[in-house]
Amino acid sequence: MSAYSFFQRASKAYHDHPTLSKLLIVCTVSGGGLVAFSDARPFKSIYSNQVQGECNKKKVVVLGTGWAGTSFLKNLDNSSYDVHVVSPRNYFAFTPLLPSVTCGTVEARSIVEPIRTITKKKGYDVHFKEAKCYKIDPEKKKVHCKSSQDTDLGGKEDFALDYDYLVIGMGARVNTFNTPGVVEHAHFLKEVEDAQRIRQTVIDNFERASLPGVSEEERKRILHFVVVGGGPTGVEFAAELHDFVHEDLGKLYPQIKDDVKITLMEAGDHILNMFDKRITAFAEEKFQRDGIHVRTGSMVVKVSDKEIYTKERATGNVVDIPYGMVVWSTGIGTRPEVVDFMKQIGQNNRRVLATDEWLRVEGCDGVYALGDCATINQRRVMEDIGVIFSKADKNKSGTLNLKDFQEVVDDILERYPQVKLYLKKNKMRNFKALLKNSQENAQNQPIVIENFKSALSAVDSQMKNLPATAQVAAQQGAYLADCFNRMEDCEKYPEGPLRFRGDGRHRFHPFRYRHLGQFAPLGGEQTAFQLPGDWVSIGHSSQWLWYSVYASKLVSWRTRMLVVSDWGRRFIFGRDSSRI
Amino acid sequence: MSAYSFFQRASKAYHDHPTLSKLLIVCTVSGGGLVAFSDARPFKSIYSNQVQGECNKKKVVVLGTGWAGTSFLKNLDNSSYDVHVVSPRNYFAFTPLLPSVTCGTVEARSIVEPIRTITKKKGYDVHFKEAKCYKIDPEKKKVHCKSSQDTDLGGKEDFALDYDYLVIGMGARVNTFNTPGVVEHAHFLKEVEDAQRIRQTVIDNFERASLPGVSEEERKRILHFVVVGGGPTGVEFAAELHDFVHEDLGKLYPQIKDDVKITLMEAGDHILNMFDKRITAFAEEKFQRDGIHVRTGSMVVKVSDKEIYTKERATGNVVDIPYGMVVWSTGIGTRPEVVDFMKQIGQNNRRVLATDEWLRVEGCDGVYALGDCATINQRRVMEDIGVIFSKADKNKSGTLNLKDFQEVVDDILERYPQVKLYLKKNKMRNFKALLKNSQENAQNQPIVIENFKSALSAVDSQMKNLPATAQVAAQQGAYLADCFNRMEDCEKYPEGPLRFRGDGRHRFHPFRYRHLGQFAPLGGEQTAFQLPGDWVSIGHSSQWLWYSVYASKLVSWRTRMLVVSDWGRRFIFGRDSSRI
Repeated sequence: MSAYSFFQRASKAYHDHPTLSKLLIVCTVSGGGLVAFSDARPFKSIYSNQVQGECNKKKVVVLGTGWAGTSFLKNLDNSSYDVHVVSPRNYFAFTPLLPSVTCGTVEARSIVEPIRTITKKKGYDVHFKEAKCYKIDPEKKKVHCKSSQDTDLGGKEDFALDYDYLVIGMGARVNTFNTPGVVEHAHFLKEVEDAQRIRQTVIDNFERASLPGVSEEERKRILHFVVVGGGPTGVEFAAELHDFVHEDLGKLYPQIKDDVKITLMEAGDHILNMFDKRITAFAEEKFQRDGIHVRTGSMVVKVSDKEIYTKERATGNVVDIPYGMVVWSTGIGTRPEVVDFMKQIGQNNRRVLATDEWLRVEGCDGVYALGDCATINQRRVMEDIGVIFSKADKNKSGTLNLKDFQEVVDDILERYPQVKLYLKKNKMRNFKALLKNSQENAQNQPIVIENFKSALSAVDSQMKNLPATAQVAAQQGAYLADCFNRMEDCEKYPEGPLRFRGDGRHRFHPFRYRHLGQFAPLGGEQTAFQLPGDWVSIGHSSQWLWYSVYASKLVSWRTRMLVVSDWGRRFIFGRDSSRI
Repeated sequence: MSAYSFFQRASKAYHDHPTLSKLLIVCTVSGGGLVAFSDARPFKSIYSNQVQGECNKKKVVVLGTGWAGTSFLKNLDNSSYDVHVVSPRNYFAFTPLLPSVTCGTVEARSIVEPIRTITKKKGYDVHFKEAKCYKIDPEKKKVHCKSSQDTDLGGKEDFALDYDYLVIGMGARVNTFNTPGVVEHAHFLKEVEDAQRIRQTVIDNFERASLPGVSEEERKRILHFVVVGGGPTGVEFAAELHDFVHEDLGKLYPQIKDDVKITLMEAGDHILNMFDKRITAFAEEKFQRDGIHVRTGSMVVKVSDKEIYTKERATGNVVDIPYGMVVWSTGIGTRPEVVDFMKQIGQNNRRVLATDEWLRVEGCDGVYALGDCATINQRRVMEDIGVIFSKADKNKSGTLNLKDFQEVVDDILERYPQVKLYLKKNKMRNFKALLKNSQENAQNQPIVIENFKSALSAVDSQMKNLPATAQVAAQQGAYLADCFNRMEDCEKYPEGPLRFRGDGRHRFHPFRYRHLGQFAPLGGEQTAFQLPGDWVSIGHSSQWLWYSVYASKLVSWRTRMLVVSDWGRRFIFGRDSSRI
């Protein structure tokens, strides 16, 4: 191939994809994006990096190297801990780009960073063990692990680790809702290996469909790609696959490209239902234009090796659809090890491991849980209404005047965030306004417990669980690391709110989630972007933002460089279709 | 991580590796290298790209997409053929860089190019089928193939293709010499997947060795990497692994790096024995300095899951050595399908499929074989001595005078290349000198058959087989494509030498191999480079050459860009140790 034709293609690529110019901007933006979009970084403790003898070092064991665990490790900078990390993966994977990996828009290796490289940057030792924790023993303060490699370790298959503090960030498993055949026949999209397998299967199916002696019906089946689950991941994968087929594979497999069919199945009424309605509508229209079949209200009941069976809500019938590949990206479920742990600590009747607002596992000392494997179980105001009142009522008069009330209001607002949300929702200026509403002509009248109750009766309605996203996990990891960094000085000088059910104050401020917005790439350089509040941006413009955010969020300069160069490569040369 | 520290690292990397500056030159050199080192490209036929009706198109079936097959496809530019390609791999792999892939110096995807992308550039259709040819039927002129994917094609598992011309470039298999346990326990280094598996296994072993509860003895075993075969591949892999361990893994696994041991086993007396003695000596010394254990004269007799058994030539004893990973890179053997084909055409007692100097399979019409799966069976002068003499002796006088002799000498030299080699070796000016030598005071005396015989009696000693290298395969592919491009006009106007055993001339010039030199990277930016003649270059300087040659030889601008950027990335960030 001559140099001339190379430049020819490069320039052609440029004109086909005006976004190439954006890409160049990305490289510069990403730096800024780093500032603009980086998570709230906890301030460095004056106590950090203090040198201590190994003897009195507290042993911290971290389970998992996903968003939660890695963000904890990155932000922990207190050498007074002896840190051990256990995970079946010796790397951190930037999961938001997994759908791009399935089609080679980005290479798998570009979105991973070895944990050892991340922790090496610390001033002190972090001991990593590539193993799977199969049992947590909160009684003995031990975790039992075994190598994640199938080969045995020559006799001693597994080992146990003691801990003073345990940080559980094991993530979740894919939820198949016990649908028969899913585990056997469907692809998941949670790990890097999944994405690589999907990529190979797509190419395999194209090659198989190209062989002589394959009937037209069979060819159509092989080239029918089904995505189950209309969440961001499923939608992005469908979009990526569509682009892969139409921008790259179509040129290489011209004789079969018209037989390709992509179907997106969603049990609910709409795809992307966690997004703003405008985005949902836009996505559904775009997919229709692109020829991606969106089947809403159809629930998968069974998957066989060549057919997928769905129950249509509209008709109630079960229909079977021949397919070539199924990608299953519905909700998440709890890992067996975590379920087992929950049984031990008496959380049998819960779906997910529960923690308090400080990410401490309830009823279990020195154990923290964060990320997808846990959920924060918020305290209801109504549970504590009595103690709150009496705390405020210093002189035990049975009534509150605004003065002694002033002293506790901030603590209430911090301890029970639902109050603030309620005020905001009802457009009230402050807590006072809330109480006023509750009593008629309440000018400076002392407040009795009844008014207090009725005033706050509705606030608990504002409690909601946090979404299971990378953003939440990353912020929780950073928050917990900050607590660990300042453990000692916060013992001495607690900074948290009043303990209404006890004396003194909490050591730390409770965890607060700051939503930085979310986006869903819809293919063809289109991205739906939703920021907190009501700001929604759809289309090419948001692609810039998308690039700069992703480029800035990536864990290291290495991964940033690789991902950006992957984007550049794909603009110039297209995606690779080699079956490796 | 701050921008500052990034530049810090970049500059550090630069100073650690002064070769970074060379790298920049590579990018510029590669273009030149392209010219300097590109194979002899056959001139374009005036008959090429002629449009013909499908009806009278000859059907060419190409088996394999390695060096031979791909080079044939790249150079074939005659649209009067209907070309079908069958291969289990839908891509071409630049195999010389496989050892670099095992340690992530270069990414797997950077050295592959989809066949469909290569053939798409042709003006006409080339039909590719990802399948394995399991039977060649020269009687019916058919090849039988089945999909290389384990999944069945819904009933019709396989298919057959007719051919007018068959081009066999299936390559060879690894030769285990039937050593027990090799297939079960050893890694090979022939396919891209092999290299990827090796890379994962290296990381696996480092992680396993880092786990608690692994005895020191066991750790030493796991970290013992054994390479069997002291050829260029084995040597380069050992060197790559050494660099990987010392430049990258050592930093991440400090507590175990001293337990790592690399052993290179060679049954012969020296490694790299096909190279110049100076290179062998240099390599052996360098490996000794690097701490790579070179065991010459030790032949592997058995491989178990944890031990490798070798017979030491010096002592005759069999010793067993515990290992963590074995890479087997000894010679090559013939593929079963090819063996089966040889039986059918009566080549039972040969080791490799034999062709004539025109790459035609002997005793089998319209079938060509090239690359590692075949060898050229040169014609001996002594077989033909009679016919050669009588061809020269036009007037059937029983003697040759120099005049009628002049007319055939060029044909003799071309048809029997060993004659030229013999002259060169014995420093003779020309054929005349050879004859003179054979007869005392032979001024202008006519030559009788006896003199002729005795003069040529020794020349056949100069016959040797071509090495099984990418270079040979690529040149054979280009040569054969040239013949196919000019088939028709060469029918009319044969350009080859006289047919001594028949009438007229051969259609084409026989295949001639032009040796462009070979090199062996020895790690630590050192490369041994051997050019034709006696020119040998060792050390840093040749690294430039190495880069520029590889960069220029790569199939496409895409792969060139990727490989060069991989090199750059590794200089700045080092190799990735994520287990994917």
